[in-house]
Amino acid sequence: MSTVKLLTDREADAIPAVKAVFDDIRATRKSEFINNFWRGLANDPALLKRTWEGLKAVMTVEGALDPLVREMVYIAVSTANGCSYCVHSHTAAARARGMTEAQHAELLAVIGLAGQTNHLVTAMQIPVDPEFDVSAN
Amino acid sequence: MSTVKLLTDREADAIPAVKAVFDDIRATRKSEFINNFWRGLANDPALLKRTWEGLKAVMTVEGALDPLVREMVYIAVSTANGCSYCVHSHTAAARARGMTEAQHAELLAVIGLAGQTNHLVTAMQIPVDPEFDVSAN
Amino acid sequence: MSTVKLLTDREADAIPAVKAVFDDIRATRKSEFINNFWRGLANDPALLKRTWEGLKAVMTVEGALDPLVREMVYIAVSTANGCSYCVHSHTAAARARGMTEAQHAELLAVIGLAGQTNHLVTAMQIPVDPEFDVSAN
Amino acid sequence: MSTVKLLTDREADAIPAVKAVFDDIRATRKSEFINNFWRGLANDPALLKRTWEGLKAVMTVEGALDPLVREMVYIAVSTANGCSYCVHSHTAAARARGMTEAQHAELLAVIGLAGQTNHLVTAMQIPVDPEFDVSAN
Amino acid sequence: MSTVKLLTDREADAIPAVKAVFDDIRATRKSEFINNFWRGLANDPALLKRTWEGLKAVMTVEGALDPLVREMVYIAVSTANGCSYCVHSHTAAARARGMTEAQHAELLAVIGLAGQTNHLVTAMQIPVDPEFDVSAN
Amino acid sequence: MSTVKLLTDREADAIPAVKAVFDDIRATRKSEFINNFWRGLANDPALLKRTWEGLKAVMTVEGALDPLVREMVYIAVSTANGCSYCVHSHTAAARARGMTEAQHAELLAVIGLAGQTNHLVTAMQIPVDPEFDVSAN
Repeated sequence: MSTVKLLTDREADAIPAVKAVFDDIRATRKSEFINNFWRGLANDPALLKRTWEGLKAVMTVEGALDPLVREMVYIAVSTANGCSYCVHSHTAAARARGMTEAQHAELLAVIGLAGQTNHLVTAMQIPVDPEFDVSAN
Repeated sequence: MSTVKLLTDREADAIPAVKAVFDDIRATRKSEFINNFWRGLANDPALLKRTWEGLKAVMTVEGALDPLVREMVYIAVSTANGCSYCVHSHTAAARARGMTEAQHAELLAVIGLAGQTNHLVTAMQIPVDPEFDVSAN
Repeated sequence: MSTVKLLTDREADAIPAVKAVFDDIRATRKSEFINNFWRGLANDPALLKRTWEGLKAVMTVEGALDPLVREMVYIAVSTANGCSYCVHSHTAAARARGMTEAQHAELLAVIGLAGQTNHLVTAMQIPVDPEFDVSAN
Repeated sequence: MSTVKLLTDREADAIPAVKAVFDDIRATRKSEFINNFWRGLANDPALLKRTWEGLKAVMTVEGALDPLVREMVYIAVSTANGCSYCVHSHTAAARARGMTEAQHAELLAVIGLAGQTNHLVTAMQIPVDPEFDVSAN
Repeated sequence: MSTVKLLTDREADAIPAVKAVFDDIRATRKSEFINNFWRGLANDPALLKRTWEGLKAVMTVEGALDPLVREMVYIAVSTANGCSYCVHSHTAAARARGMTEAQHAELLAVIGLAGQTNHLVTAMQIPVDPEFDVSAN
Repeated sequence: MSTVKLLTDREADAIPAVKAVFDDIRATRKSEFINNFWRGLANDPALLKRTWEGLKAVMTVEGALDPLVREMVYIAVSTANGCSYCVHSHTAAARARGMTEAQHAELLAVIGLAGQTNHLVTAMQIPVDPEFDVSAN
């Protein structure tokens, strides 16, 4: 149950601006599978296009971070934001990029620890140490 | 301005259970610097000890994830939780572990993108695709 | 599956303080439908009454903001808080107040953008520009 | 104190890709003022450009929602996400677009109410009423 | 630096609806001190009145929970929401109601633990055990 | 549907380090029931052990706070973090420790009120009153 319609392939194919994005998703990912997120965004072809192009630029190109690391960071943010769908989709993506069980377990441990110390810091309202100031560099 | 006292070195040294943890932090990190987080936790030596041992086990030992990756995951969680102190301290820690400007920039881009798509997914209440089900594996 | 009982009409009618609120909800909304939120709150008639009166004062009276705008702001907060039920109920309410597909699509775009820049700002710990200070006005 | 350098005008002007965006911000906003957010993003010209273009497309073009409404939605998301800088900058932007004190007061009331009912709903784990299902439409 | 004006006593006294609430806050709390939260809300006398009456009903009357317990719950919510002001004000209120250092330390430990397990649960997307279903009772 | 496997009793018994923790959970709680959270953590015996020992130290020992109060604080944090599973499991735990309907209703009222004032404070960006400074004590 979503707050927007999820476009079927037939509905998506009928809107050229949507079809173009779906085709690019399939070509970039080398897979026929289009997940529900894009089917929801397809109600607004301009938002769909901007969002896909942003994601493509950040997640799929060569860069300074390993693509698997980017997926793990994505899981971390999605967890802290409580986005169930996002945790599922990016855990699947991380597995597809080779995340091992041991790496997943460590990722969970870091996420849990950060959750704990974030709460402790906020409850104590700890002031930032001047040593952390990057502008001093 | 914090909600607890931040123990000075003199005060910490006067409590053997606190001194033992501070000594271990210094030895593990090969640095004399004890940041404010530990000085706040030192009001409860048992909580200080448990928290430090948890962090030491997760962040400093050899493992399946590069220590720098763990710090970047920590930054990601801390950002989504809005913990200012934690963002500062773990960005400093990531830099100390060799994070380059290019890596930091990519990390920011992934965090921003995840923030965006997390919100879009939640606003649309997208149902999880069955293809993401790990139990089907 | 909820953590409290959801009162049926029969159970609600048996408690005068609950019946009075349910009657007022029906009269104010010109509809027989009482959604589950109120059925859960009905376990505590005083909390039910206070919450309904607060909502009635803020959401249903004439004011400086269009009622549809108020519902869109409600969706925005509910999304950022990850409240699935609230996103559903206020999207339905916004549609009932005339929200078009184009307005919904723009709302989603703004919510997504805010999610993104909120995360970027927090990760960079950007200091507030003095130009934003209202007290200077 | 930020985790990235905030580029001065002189530093920004020395990087053509940054200068181009800053020029466009100034032209679009008809103001010389470049706030700190963009000065932080300028460390990564590609992220700066993508973020500005996304914001420009969502916040400044003609659309189905009044520009002031979009700013109020932005304030709502930023509040729920606890982004202090964003609350300041978008409250200033809303005022610049004509938000009255009465409108601001109502916005605050809706945000506060949503915060309250979001928490009540989550604590009671209220199930979504089938009446809210858009797919039934 | 706030996004609204903080009314001084002189300004508050000039608005009868505000003065009435400030008088009641002082009488209820048996203290001349009016903290900034109320001075900000005073820009909207109706919101000020509703908020104060809600808080008075929940926090100051005799009830099933000890007033100190209510303050500790308030700190817990405020911490998870990242509300710095609220953490400060309710920690001060809890101390005024007799919270000992030992109680505060335990509160911090519970808040930190909950932060940790909340994140672990969300990252693992643990399904709710049927044994937790209250409606089965 | 979880992102990790939930270990059955048979699978748990086959891993001595997991069996030892499950045995301790059962002995400590005087119940055969092992809820799904621990079955998910069991994929990483070290994380399982650390998490259980942390929880046992904080939630089950004699201390300055009543065990029921600790469970109510846990519910408060879990609600603000939007952790559905955690709200369910700790509400069940609080009931098992004797939480009455009247106490639960008051807990809900405090959580809702805190959600409201947290949002109001953040939207107004209220500065901390110097009177709240503990270091002045």
